[in-house]
Amino acid sequence: MILAAGEGSRLARIRNGTPKPAVKLLGLSLAERTITACNAAGIHRFLVVLGHEADQVRAHYQEIAARRHCDIDFVIAQDWKLGNGASALAAATKLDDAPFLLTMSDHLIAPSLIEQILLARPEQGEVSLAVDRNKTGVFDVDDVTKVATSDDRVVCIGKSLEEWDAADTGVFFCTDALFSALTRAHEQEKYSLTDGVRDLAEAGKVNAIDVTGEDWIDVDTPEAFGEARRRLLASLTKGSEDGYISLRLNRPLSTRLSAHLATTGITPNQITVISFLISLVGAGLLSVGLFATGILGGLLVQAASVIDGCDGEVARLKHLSSPRGAWLDTVLDRYADMAVTLAVTFAYAAVHPGPFPWIIGFLAAFGFILASYVTKEFGIRTGEPYPNDVLNRLKRRDLRVFIICLGAVVDRPFEALMIAGALTHLCVIGVLMRGWKRSGLVERRT
Amino acid sequence: MILAAGEGSRLARIRNGTPKPAVKLLGLSLAERTITACNAAGIHRFLVVLGHEADQVRAHYQEIAARRHCDIDFVIAQDWKLGNGASALAAATKLDDAPFLLTMSDHLIAPSLIEQILLARPEQGEVSLAVDRNKTGVFDVDDVTKVATSDDRVVCIGKSLEEWDAADTGVFFCTDALFSALTRAHEQEKYSLTDGVRDLAEAGKVNAIDVTGEDWIDVDTPEAFGEARRRLLASLTKGSEDGYISLRLNRPLSTRLSAHLATTGITPNQITVISFLISLVGAGLLSVGLFATGILGGLLVQAASVIDGCDGEVARLKHLSSPRGAWLDTVLDRYADMAVTLAVTFAYAAVHPGPFPWIIGFLAAFGFILASYVTKEFGIRTGEPYPNDVLNRLKRRDLRVFIICLGAVVDRPFEALMIAGALTHLCVIGVLMRGWKRSGLVERRT
Repeated sequence: MILAAGEGSRLARIRNGTPKPAVKLLGLSLAERTITACNAAGIHRFLVVLGHEADQVRAHYQEIAARRHCDIDFVIAQDWKLGNGASALAAATKLDDAPFLLTMSDHLIAPSLIEQILLARPEQGEVSLAVDRNKTGVFDVDDVTKVATSDDRVVCIGKSLEEWDAADTGVFFCTDALFSALTRAHEQEKYSLTDGVRDLAEAGKVNAIDVTGEDWIDVDTPEAFGEARRRLLASLTKGSEDGYISLRLNRPLSTRLSAHLATTGITPNQITVISFLISLVGAGLLSVGLFATGILGGLLVQAASVIDGCDGEVARLKHLSSPRGAWLDTVLDRYADMAVTLAVTFAYAAVHPGPFPWIIGFLAAFGFILASYVTKEFGIRTGEPYPNDVLNRLKRRDLRVFIICLGAVVDRPFEALMIAGALTHLCVIGVLMRGWKRSGLVERRT
Repeated sequence: MILAAGEGSRLARIRNGTPKPAVKLLGLSLAERTITACNAAGIHRFLVVLGHEADQVRAHYQEIAARRHCDIDFVIAQDWKLGNGASALAAATKLDDAPFLLTMSDHLIAPSLIEQILLARPEQGEVSLAVDRNKTGVFDVDDVTKVATSDDRVVCIGKSLEEWDAADTGVFFCTDALFSALTRAHEQEKYSLTDGVRDLAEAGKVNAIDVTGEDWIDVDTPEAFGEARRRLLASLTKGSEDGYISLRLNRPLSTRLSAHLATTGITPNQITVISFLISLVGAGLLSVGLFATGILGGLLVQAASVIDGCDGEVARLKHLSSPRGAWLDTVLDRYADMAVTLAVTFAYAAVHPGPFPWIIGFLAAFGFILASYVTKEFGIRTGEPYPNDVLNRLKRRDLRVFIICLGAVVDRPFEALMIAGALTHLCVIGVLMRGWKRSGLVERRT
């Protein structure tokens, strides 16, 4: 159950006439981000409570339902203006007896947070609330709904609580006890969700489920919107196995670029192909052999390397990741490497006759792909991916492209190719030795 | 418990003075083959019953125990000349109450047969016997011990049984009921293992465990010895994912060679390195550019490709397989490919100036390794190895080495390289498309 009835007046500046759930954040509406987070946690059936601009909001959700292949039902809360408790109450007759997840259309929630609360199925007559005990990490602490807990029970809840030890994340795992509580609150002319939950909390019926460390934010002000955007972009680099150049140069540039690309209609696979074509143009320029075209070619190849990061980033930002996209990317990267190596060698060989330049180019190209090959093979033979150690970082594509770009800028692309090639062969030998030392421990797979 | 007390007189011609368990079959003694089969099935503690030439046989088993890191105890059967039942009886006091596996030192048994009978733990007072119901597949049917069964019980057993439906494989899973039965038989002056088992069978205490389809053979005659050797060599090709040339040319040659190599002290890793060095010499000869050296070089490279199959075969024949050996082999094969491609291109470029030969050589070398790379990557992305389809067979090393050898023999090594290179790039595109079509179904792994 998703509450999408409110007006979102505080976001007026950003909304610009769009209903709040349809407001786009890095290419995806807040509504769609809630749906995709739930999808990722295994939830595919939804009941959306409408109120303000119900028709527009419904249309927006219907479009999401069609695209994401999920099942979205609607209920209109006539009393939505009274408060979000009144909105929630409108759903009472539309749900069966099973416990249900309750969240807000305007909260950004990590799928892992949802997975955690789904493990805390409430007993009959109770409600589970995901709470964040890291008080200092909460964004906009004045506005957040505060929770006081005793052991794993919520004892009190409210925005203006003096003594509190956790923040309400806005994600609940409910039984229909919630509706009884909201009805009682309603009779006392209290119309917010918090009022209903407080009633239950006082009866000791609200479990506090600790989800500290999981990412969530209530996107109800322009400041929160900016923070949510910042967090989404930061999540793109988190946990990735980037090489040195990627980490310090490519990734900071590509995430900025991805933030723009996500708001356009361009697909990740189109970005993959564009990056590949830029590499080819760069290679073409490098093959001419002039200083000026070399610089331009080198810069283009490096630009393609930056853009090559955007396909995955846009895919993750817009929840469009596909194995086939990653597959295409991997193979095209190899062909781009080949084109660049061939181009640099060709240009050098044109003014240095004899087999020497070609032998070097040959060895470099072979090393580039062999380095990737041996780490894959290592992974297959040990049953776990090759670790992101120094050898792995030194052999990555980001570094060799950067070295060649640098070489082109100082009019020494071929010498740069030699260095990059030598480096990868050293990495191959290193990985070979590492495998030799360790694979005695592992099972043979033939 | 392994019976190794008999004389093995019928093998006299092959034994040549060696005690029967120590007779070597493709580099490993019969005794060691029994031990390694048990090891593979998870058994590492043994009791060996000695009789004929007890000291020599013990010394042989002790040497195996040290090398294979297993625990072998001994008992001497004074009465071994009476029969193998009398030998088995000698072990009665040396075993604790737990059920035990009983087999013969001179049977070649597949580990999977042992695994199957280990699943059929006998009840107290009973014995399980692995039987083969494929009567026509049994080697030397006159000599085999025959079994008559009713449902899953043995009703009668003996070499001269008129009506029988299964063969005794010589592998038992026993309780000490066997010793009581052997004692009863002994008192009636019947001294063979079969006599004891017949006594139990008549009481309905012998389970017939169907292991039809598993490989086993009683190596008690020169003919059986030859058959065992033939089966071991045949097992080297069974289930392997060979390419076209490997299947029809390399493997038949390499298994013959391996049969000889297994009887020498040469290790699989030494074979890997020798094969690599022969490739390098072949590449050196190909780089000269003369017809005669080209033919010799091409033939050496093809010979290296054949020998390259021997490392794994000898390892399997002698139970010396190691992951590090396979790892070394994989990486050296890639460098051998590079050397050959470079050599052929170098020779052609020497008489055809300009970048054309080098670009072709470059593309070919890149294709050779890229083809292996994409199938590995496909495997990683789908979670299962790339199937051994036409694309996979066409891109394998056996074929490209053969094409280049053929090219060298007709004085067209470079043209052959072009064909092999084009073929691998076509395979890469095929695998790419296959991945594109199918990986939509699979999880992304980044």
